[in-house]
Amino acid sequence: MAQLIADRRDIDFVLYEQMETEKLAKEEKFAGLNRKAFDMIISEARNLALKEILPTKIDGDRIGVTFENGKVTVPPSYHKPHKLLLEGEWASMTEDPELGGQGLPHIIYQAAKEFLAGANGTLTGYSMLGHGTGKMIDIFGTREQKDMFLKKIYSGQWGGTMVLTESNAGSDVGSLTTTAVKNDDGTYSITGDKIFITNGEHDLSENIVHPVLARIEGEPEGIKGISIFIVPKIWVNPDGSLGEPNDVVCTGIEEKTGIHGSATCSLSFGSKGKCRGFLLGDVNKGMRVMFYMMNEARHDVGFQGFCNATSAYQYALTYARDRLQGAELGAPGGPAQVPIIKHPDVRRMLLWMKCHVEALRSLIYYVDTLFDRIQCSNDEAEKKECDNMAALLTPLIKSLGSDRGFDVCVQAVQVYGGYGFIQEFPVEQLMRDCKITSIYEGTNGIQAMDLLGRKMGLEKGAVFGSMIEKMKSAVQKARAVAGLETLAADFDEAVDALARLAGIMGKRAGSAAFKTAFAHATPFMNATGDVVLGWMLLWRAQIAAEKLASGKAQKDEAFYKGQVKSAEFFINTVLPVTLGSMNAIEKGSAAAVDIDEASFGA
Amino acid sequence: MAQLIADRRDIDFVLYEQMETEKLAKEEKFAGLNRKAFDMIISEARNLALKEILPTKIDGDRIGVTFENGKVTVPPSYHKPHKLLLEGEWASMTEDPELGGQGLPHIIYQAAKEFLAGANGTLTGYSMLGHGTGKMIDIFGTREQKDMFLKKIYSGQWGGTMVLTESNAGSDVGSLTTTAVKNDDGTYSITGDKIFITNGEHDLSENIVHPVLARIEGEPEGIKGISIFIVPKIWVNPDGSLGEPNDVVCTGIEEKTGIHGSATCSLSFGSKGKCRGFLLGDVNKGMRVMFYMMNEARHDVGFQGFCNATSAYQYALTYARDRLQGAELGAPGGPAQVPIIKHPDVRRMLLWMKCHVEALRSLIYYVDTLFDRIQCSNDEAEKKECDNMAALLTPLIKSLGSDRGFDVCVQAVQVYGGYGFIQEFPVEQLMRDCKITSIYEGTNGIQAMDLLGRKMGLEKGAVFGSMIEKMKSAVQKARAVAGLETLAADFDEAVDALARLAGIMGKRAGSAAFKTAFAHATPFMNATGDVVLGWMLLWRAQIAAEKLASGKAQKDEAFYKGQVKSAEFFINTVLPVTLGSMNAIEKGSAAAVDIDEASFGA
Repeated sequence: MAQLIADRRDIDFVLYEQMETEKLAKEEKFAGLNRKAFDMIISEARNLALKEILPTKIDGDRIGVTFENGKVTVPPSYHKPHKLLLEGEWASMTEDPELGGQGLPHIIYQAAKEFLAGANGTLTGYSMLGHGTGKMIDIFGTREQKDMFLKKIYSGQWGGTMVLTESNAGSDVGSLTTTAVKNDDGTYSITGDKIFITNGEHDLSENIVHPVLARIEGEPEGIKGISIFIVPKIWVNPDGSLGEPNDVVCTGIEEKTGIHGSATCSLSFGSKGKCRGFLLGDVNKGMRVMFYMMNEARHDVGFQGFCNATSAYQYALTYARDRLQGAELGAPGGPAQVPIIKHPDVRRMLLWMKCHVEALRSLIYYVDTLFDRIQCSNDEAEKKECDNMAALLTPLIKSLGSDRGFDVCVQAVQVYGGYGFIQEFPVEQLMRDCKITSIYEGTNGIQAMDLLGRKMGLEKGAVFGSMIEKMKSAVQKARAVAGLETLAADFDEAVDALARLAGIMGKRAGSAAFKTAFAHATPFMNATGDVVLGWMLLWRAQIAAEKLASGKAQKDEAFYKGQVKSAEFFINTVLPVTLGSMNAIEKGSAAAVDIDEASFGA
Repeated sequence: MAQLIADRRDIDFVLYEQMETEKLAKEEKFAGLNRKAFDMIISEARNLALKEILPTKIDGDRIGVTFENGKVTVPPSYHKPHKLLLEGEWASMTEDPELGGQGLPHIIYQAAKEFLAGANGTLTGYSMLGHGTGKMIDIFGTREQKDMFLKKIYSGQWGGTMVLTESNAGSDVGSLTTTAVKNDDGTYSITGDKIFITNGEHDLSENIVHPVLARIEGEPEGIKGISIFIVPKIWVNPDGSLGEPNDVVCTGIEEKTGIHGSATCSLSFGSKGKCRGFLLGDVNKGMRVMFYMMNEARHDVGFQGFCNATSAYQYALTYARDRLQGAELGAPGGPAQVPIIKHPDVRRMLLWMKCHVEALRSLIYYVDTLFDRIQCSNDEAEKKECDNMAALLTPLIKSLGSDRGFDVCVQAVQVYGGYGFIQEFPVEQLMRDCKITSIYEGTNGIQAMDLLGRKMGLEKGAVFGSMIEKMKSAVQKARAVAGLETLAADFDEAVDALARLAGIMGKRAGSAAFKTAFAHATPFMNATGDVVLGWMLLWRAQIAAEKLASGKAQKDEAFYKGQVKSAEFFINTVLPVTLGSMNAIEKGSAAAVDIDEASFGA
């Protein structure tokens, strides 16, 4: 069977036609880079992904990780590609080469990662998830901490984690009970049990560095008394060499629906009273540090959902072209069996998947351009603007990438029919693997509260307003292109409706009916997300239609026409549904708030 | 943890308050039965389900069925409850007691089955799936065939299957290649390979009877040349005793996403040239026989999806009441942690699940009342009317039960958060088990074509029209109840929109734009389904509001209030989205039809 991950043509379109990535090479920060270099890097990632990583994907699912006597073992086939990822310095591509990175723009990292993580995200996680850990130390650590940890984490030589959750403190981080007590040598003794720690223990790295949320004894309850500590699995001496094992014990791993190759660990810190850690940043400022990492993690999780979706679409498309079943509708005398891509309902499913995958890719890469602007710009106002826009779009990427990503996988299963439900074909694993993305790094319900309760109000709503303006500007550009006038006008209607609804929801969230507002937070996030996806697709269609009109499309004509069709389909069949949802949100039924708890049932 | 299957209070509401099941006891066919008897039967089913069947559910998933040397082994724990199901005559409850049934109304069977199959559908399938096989023989078989097979199949002593699919003939049954050649003794020699045969081989029954679709040599291609044969695993002598093993070999089972306790078999018929079968019904009329069974099977599959959903809702509700996490929104100074059912977004999820589960239950049981009318009535016109309405609602029950059922399970996973993704908790299995229901017995895409292409046109649209009239009548009744006027009016708007859209779609399906019509067949089915669910909920609310107004609600007040809230929530938050979808369908984008195949991507 063909091995399919991502669509390189579409990636190139987003990189060079939509996001104008070549311009980055003119920035001082990326001096020496050019499109040729970018292309080579992506091709190299693709080769590594197809040749070495993708073949481990089934092992990850069927063998999975195993647990015995406190040790976690990954599938044997994971070792070689993990080593290759480290040797090729793929773990932290955007970081300084001196620290183990490649000094690349975020958007190029994203493209390379589409192949690497898309081929088997549970494998790449062992080298790549430490990036967030490293970033926290990079930003909040002391000089000494950076010297001790940074390069080994960024390079992927040491693993990194994110240690928040306890059995009674999940979404509600502030209720954690893990404690820290200061020792005479300045380190802290950590005691507590944590769960759901991704890659908390495994046999791929010589060390694993845990950023652990804990409360220093005597500090306030809730999130305002939380500090964060660097707790290495093996103690690290000031010169960076490894010391004795720290008192960190893996007490079990979870049996999960998917991502079986990823070790989801329960960790016990200090069960023998001997777990030590370094305070990272200031006392009681742990949430600030963690939130910095969490936004990156949320972007990554949305991307993870999307990776499953792009692969699922590729597989479904290939299957629909190959699978013969039934005669063509209304074609008597034709062949008894045609490829199922000829059937209208299958085309509907495929086009639905296509436009969502494309729009998500554009949205994810668009936020990468913001990250890159922040790195390149010397203008503080511009940096702030980019940072705000990325912050606003974070809950959308997280929720859309995961929820729409999952929907795409489910649709792929449906395209395969009975074959979609069996493990002989790849799409059911994608569906199972994808599901976690709606849950971890803040459930999508948390994302919805983040959007309505915090992000919409950023700069008193000016950031949201600026997003609406960008959409309006996309409408103007599209309106000017022959053939897109109606489409642009239809989309404009959705933008206006969203802007209006945002005003209503903002007011409602601050009124006595705030609970009703929050009972509609998720539908509102989804509606906002749909309009954002429509923006991405109209933008794509405008570029494609211009290219077609210019006569320069040549062999890519089918691709560009496909861009216009994606926008047409989305704006004409998805957005009317979104408008209906906006009506419901505006109507603002309080039923979910008013209903007595007893009325939910026995 | 509490063991949860279905909500008895809600079942009783549907049975006795909505569907007025007690009236059935006045029918001659059900003479001697009464509410007390019905209640006892359901309670007995519930006890058996909780005590003996539910404990096997995890074995079904974790141990699953195993295959070795042509033999399929079910989990050891399946044997005892299977035996109890046979002893209790639960396999074919609606059939004549003399044939191994209990002579019960369909609606009572449905209620009992909610517990039995809801507890572990992969287990109950081994005794219950044969009912369809038996029914075919009952209706189309010769006297001799009935004597040989019927009682043993209906009683569940012998298993039964449904043997259609081949690797290149799935949805496209007409392309099958299995052949039949008539022997001198009147039997047929069958040769061919079949796949995806549920319970095609296992160690629970002494015999398994396969109804096999095959083409008699020399008969026409396509579905018009298909006949159906009774092919027992062990040959059956005319006196009903068992003979030699027939030449039917299980060549493998599928590894699936879910329903691991159900054996999905590949069967080879006649690989040694010695497989014999009996022709059932007339030559070349196999599809007619199979379709008779398929409608029952589709109702069952929708119900199967629903069973996962009702269980998932019960678990999610219980979890939301028990799980403490976070403070209440806008309640400073309150407890640091409250049950998550206090959080608006969780309430939204629960109420969404609740109203879908309730509406599906009513719809499924409503069709049972039609089945029961057909059995009891002596009026041919009434029988025909009931049969037509059941036929119209079949694709809706199949698709809504499976798709909305799956959505409910996914939502339950979300309510559990990280715990939803791990096997320690029951909801992820429900989600995996449920997924198949959108696919088998005709994918939901096939259901959509059935609705638009066949069922809508039944009696020149009069059946669809009659459904609209029933909804209008429900609106009238609800309008007359104080407090429901606005809700009834809002629902009425959706009914009018559906009636109008159905006219448009009917015309479009018969026009040159028929492909566009069929590219919207699934959204149209979903929109129709939403309005039908709204009908069920408004009907429930009307009964509940009358009960509340009468002052007779007493200790059930919370339950009845919950009925009104379900209708409110659905009509005010779900149906506006449906109206948006109807706008999109009416708009009728041809993008999915027009797009060049090359434009879907590389």
